[in-house]
Amino acid sequence: MTKFDEATRAVRVDENTYDVSLDPGYSIGGPLNGGYLMAVILRAVVDASSHEHPVTTSAQFLRAPRPGPARVRLEQIKAGRTATMTRATLIQDDRSFIETLVTTATLADVVPDWTDGPSAVMPPLEQCVRLPDPKPESNMTLNAQMEMAFDPPTIGWLDGRPTGRPEGRAYFRMAEPQDPDPYVLALAVDALPPVVFSAGERGWAPTVDLTWHLRALPAPGWLTLLGSGRMISDGWFDEDVEVRDSTGRLVAQSRQLARVGRG
Amino acid sequence: MTKFDEATRAVRVDENTYDVSLDPGYSIGGPLNGGYLMAVILRAVVDASSHEHPVTTSAQFLRAPRPGPARVRLEQIKAGRTATMTRATLIQDDRSFIETLVTTATLADVVPDWTDGPSAVMPPLEQCVRLPDPKPESNMTLNAQMEMAFDPPTIGWLDGRPTGRPEGRAYFRMAEPQDPDPYVLALAVDALPPVVFSAGERGWAPTVDLTWHLRALPAPGWLTLLGSGRMISDGWFDEDVEVRDSTGRLVAQSRQLARVGRG
Repeated sequence: MTKFDEATRAVRVDENTYDVSLDPGYSIGGPLNGGYLMAVILRAVVDASSHEHPVTTSAQFLRAPRPGPARVRLEQIKAGRTATMTRATLIQDDRSFIETLVTTATLADVVPDWTDGPSAVMPPLEQCVRLPDPKPESNMTLNAQMEMAFDPPTIGWLDGRPTGRPEGRAYFRMAEPQDPDPYVLALAVDALPPVVFSAGERGWAPTVDLTWHLRALPAPGWLTLLGSGRMISDGWFDEDVEVRDSTGRLVAQSRQLARVGRG
Repeated sequence: MTKFDEATRAVRVDENTYDVSLDPGYSIGGPLNGGYLMAVILRAVVDASSHEHPVTTSAQFLRAPRPGPARVRLEQIKAGRTATMTRATLIQDDRSFIETLVTTATLADVVPDWTDGPSAVMPPLEQCVRLPDPKPESNMTLNAQMEMAFDPPTIGWLDGRPTGRPEGRAYFRMAEPQDPDPYVLALAVDALPPVVFSAGERGWAPTVDLTWHLRALPAPGWLTLLGSGRMISDGWFDEDVEVRDSTGRLVAQSRQLARVGRG
């Protein structure tokens, strides 16, 4: 069991209740990463379902839970032969922190009937750049859990050279060797710095809704994250992340609506 | 009050319950259109919220309700100054048919900080084509509620000439003159024929999850719907719809995960 598997473990209390322990190692400057929290919730949902794969997850983020004990409360809203639908809520101190609707199904390992190419072209891995280690006082513990290598222009904002449009592209894998699975993908779809940083914005950008679809089970190796947005307006922005596996296959698609940070 | 306003009316029973009447005029060959059903649900959500605009809606479709009386049951999960989050369920005969998570907020009429151009270019309206009137026995009553003019290649599947990729593009407005509003947009994001028809698939394509974001209030006039998909695999496909208003502004974005029809 990897550290990530351990950090996302959900222990069954009864049919509709799972105990979890939110790991301080997934902090993004205080709040815990939303993708990590989705992975925790999905462990409980899949354990309780007759289907193996979380094909679609819609999460609305109410407030930021703190590290430590929490619960996932499930309500199965439809159990079907093809798909099971579940409402899952992350609870701490009797309050809801994240509300989700999840459809689980069983994906087969098949060749797609039709698939588009990637939405952007990445340079080879050796031409990509790592983020500098975060300062300990920043409480960016998430960075140590994963290895990311960025398409250089999309990380130019770090040196005061944003590209001027919302985007972010990187190779991604867990720091502790682990083949990607649906839970790693839940982390991956929310792992890029907010795409608006590349458009010159700064500050914590709280997600309001993140919906992602698992399209195929990823092959071992690096994932590629292709992030983009279409509009920044009135304090709101959208962030799309397309995830390809090491064979180039589309394995996950996410879109979030988030608030622009306050600097 | 237009026919559409009437068909989406939600009558308050108590704080968390609204009576609605599902109109047989929004049928797509039997089942009612998912966008219409979202509009009905959103009427109740917005009426009960202190905020005016449904900025993000995630809907999971459990089963198809029939025309006639139904209820919307609300559960407010967070009431905030910036945003209110609500769970809303469409109920008929004491069963859930659609589960949604909705965030309402108040959008200001501002110039975007940054915006991308449209994802596809439409020919002028006069070069676009209308669908033939559906046969009465097809029970496609939805078509009479709206006027759509298609980018010709994307409707080639009607004559046995699909483009070979999932796509669909059309101008859209209500048949009965009405300025577009968030409820019209809820209908619009699910108004195109399934994009997989253009890739050669046929048959009713049931939506599993549809998530859409209201990005700005639309100007009067025609809307433009730009639909596309990235993969058809293992019986699942994604459909993205970008909605622009008559000034070219991005007003809504949706993505659905759906099942390929069975012929």
